[in-house]
Amino acid sequence: MRDFDNITIDQLRAAGGTKWTRFPDCIGAFVAEMDFGVPPVVQDIVRSAADAGALGYLPVAERQAARDATSDWLLRNTGWRVPSERVHLLPDVLSVLRETIRHFIPPGSAVIVPTPAYMPFLTVVPALDREVVQVPSLVDDAGRYTLDLDAIDAAFAAGAGLLVLCNPWNPVGRVLTREELLALAEVVDRHGGRVFSDEIHAPILLDEVEHVPYASLDERTAGHTVTAVAASKGWNVPGLKCGQMILSNEADQAAFAPYAADVSDTVGLLGARVATAVYTDDGGWLDDVVEYLRGNRDLLAKLVAEHLPGAVLTRTEGSYIAWLDCRALDIEGSAAAFFRREAQVALTDGIACGEAGAGFVRIIMATPRPILRRAVEQMGEALARVRV
Amino acid sequence: MRDFDNITIDQLRAAGGTKWTRFPDCIGAFVAEMDFGVPPVVQDIVRSAADAGALGYLPVAERQAARDATSDWLLRNTGWRVPSERVHLLPDVLSVLRETIRHFIPPGSAVIVPTPAYMPFLTVVPALDREVVQVPSLVDDAGRYTLDLDAIDAAFAAGAGLLVLCNPWNPVGRVLTREELLALAEVVDRHGGRVFSDEIHAPILLDEVEHVPYASLDERTAGHTVTAVAASKGWNVPGLKCGQMILSNEADQAAFAPYAADVSDTVGLLGARVATAVYTDDGGWLDDVVEYLRGNRDLLAKLVAEHLPGAVLTRTEGSYIAWLDCRALDIEGSAAAFFRREAQVALTDGIACGEAGAGFVRIIMATPRPILRRAVEQMGEALARVRV
Repeated sequence: MRDFDNITIDQLRAAGGTKWTRFPDCIGAFVAEMDFGVPPVVQDIVRSAADAGALGYLPVAERQAARDATSDWLLRNTGWRVPSERVHLLPDVLSVLRETIRHFIPPGSAVIVPTPAYMPFLTVVPALDREVVQVPSLVDDAGRYTLDLDAIDAAFAAGAGLLVLCNPWNPVGRVLTREELLALAEVVDRHGGRVFSDEIHAPILLDEVEHVPYASLDERTAGHTVTAVAASKGWNVPGLKCGQMILSNEADQAAFAPYAADVSDTVGLLGARVATAVYTDDGGWLDDVVEYLRGNRDLLAKLVAEHLPGAVLTRTEGSYIAWLDCRALDIEGSAAAFFRREAQVALTDGIACGEAGAGFVRIIMATPRPILRRAVEQMGEALARVRV
Repeated sequence: MRDFDNITIDQLRAAGGTKWTRFPDCIGAFVAEMDFGVPPVVQDIVRSAADAGALGYLPVAERQAARDATSDWLLRNTGWRVPSERVHLLPDVLSVLRETIRHFIPPGSAVIVPTPAYMPFLTVVPALDREVVQVPSLVDDAGRYTLDLDAIDAAFAAGAGLLVLCNPWNPVGRVLTREELLALAEVVDRHGGRVFSDEIHAPILLDEVEHVPYASLDERTAGHTVTAVAASKGWNVPGLKCGQMILSNEADQAAFAPYAADVSDTVGLLGARVATAVYTDDGGWLDDVVEYLRGNRDLLAKLVAEHLPGAVLTRTEGSYIAWLDCRALDIEGSAAAFFRREAQVALTDGIACGEAGAGFVRIIMATPRPILRRAVEQMGEALARVRV
């Protein structure tokens, strides 16, 4: 196991990432990045390019290599067989969402976003002059979320053209089961709707669950889905800007053909090169990280029980994101604002994930365990102070 | 002076760039990249990020730093005063063109591209479902190009919404004078048209000419222009994906506000960091490169006269691109295809720059002089062989 425990806050601040520099007095837990660096193979690639002074256009052969590696990785990791010509390189998942809205849904149709949602889904869609229909999800007493299929059904019936699926589900950590996805497919298919499926967190499964690519379910879902994947979460390289759009039917592939080469030119050279490398062989780095994250997930549950009694932590099945219901903590106003001000812990306010997130906080738990411990202790101490 | 002469073809092929790997048996002169590596400060930035394993999201403060540095650079280099909030980061110049077409011209209006043009202008525009109106430019016997204002006037009168200006002008190397730009402004203003001004080659002036940002001319041009700049040509880092869009009036700034934060998220971390650095202090690298390129420009003229009599070389005032009229060489078919096949020199076929480019080749001359010499010698030898 790599020695993640000993990474210090000083080192993290010196590295200069957003999470550790935006609020210099806080423990940062609000940006979906891991505090574990990157695989050695990634460091080697970036260093070599610097040494050679070679930071030019992405060569055609390397573009193809990244598409091939994505195809191979999907097959190896999920059993989904995607011809590499159906893999298109775009800078990131949100760019894939933009292309999906531009090219694959009826002009002017609204976009359904089940909430709680990854925050930018709620801003990228209006920035394309489309209406967002927030559909709050169902949640049981343990904080386990499921899609509200009746509400999704109603939203499609009202004219929505697209559903934004996120699986593994940022921020609530669910990995949807095959049965849940099939039930969703039924609803979407009934209305002739489309699905954008963000599966960027798929490399990070913390429970013994299966990640089923939504488009891989059957002919129907292959026919109505645009999928987004990337190496950026699993291998911690979002700044290099190379995500992958997967088209899963011939009609979409033909419709996108006039645009394909063009938009692919916006991806980063190093991002494409790194994706090829880590999808092919990351030297076991991801396995180690996932194992460490499992420990973090369990530690966080213990820490919450001990220091934040009353708060309800959702079990994270996939991703390194935790979702904490703070409504029983009797915090006045935003819990995230309170913890930032009083505990020096910077979290995402759940409200940014949609109205259904009011009273919740989103916690990035991909940090050394001593830092995770300290963050929750500080949160507990802050609560104790205001309760005196 | 840095020792660019001694860089070898073997080294360039090993570095892996498109220009040297796409046609492994050829001298590559068809991709607008320089064979001189990058400034040491760029190498340091990229190496440091690798060492720290820090390749995450672009921090807000660094985004702002890149905007500030762009603003400072424009003021220092051209006297154009652009508030940094009017600088928006986008992956590259073509992304700026896309946003210009999406947000700043009437729906469905055609786009005027004076030719010969940078090749992708002719493909990006149709990929946005807009018609391209090619306007061949005027050219004198010495191969010096000027805009055909009457034809541009007619195209606007026929309903075009946008003119794509490229200054310094890829591929013909002109740096348009203030008088030429003012005459253009008159025409555009008469029709209420818009201008997209690609000024990415502005750092590279080979003659004692002034680069005048088109939008900086007067209130009219500030009001109808969207400008694109980048560090990618001057400092040889196109793979890092960070260009800059400059808005030059309050109405455009307000219209773009809902989209601004969103699209800026697609730029590369290292691209933004590198732009900040080189715009601020590149350690004299650009000056040395420009000095070397002046020598290349003069050498190329001599070599053409010696080895390719009858060919007419346009004088490159700005950029590192040469434009060679091969029509008098009596080559059957495409000159570029001939030189690639018979001389093992890979050039861009002028026809890719528009119909006006038929019979021409576009040559990237940012290469060590021994390689430039060898390329033209090989071209001359190939011609001699077919003339026997």
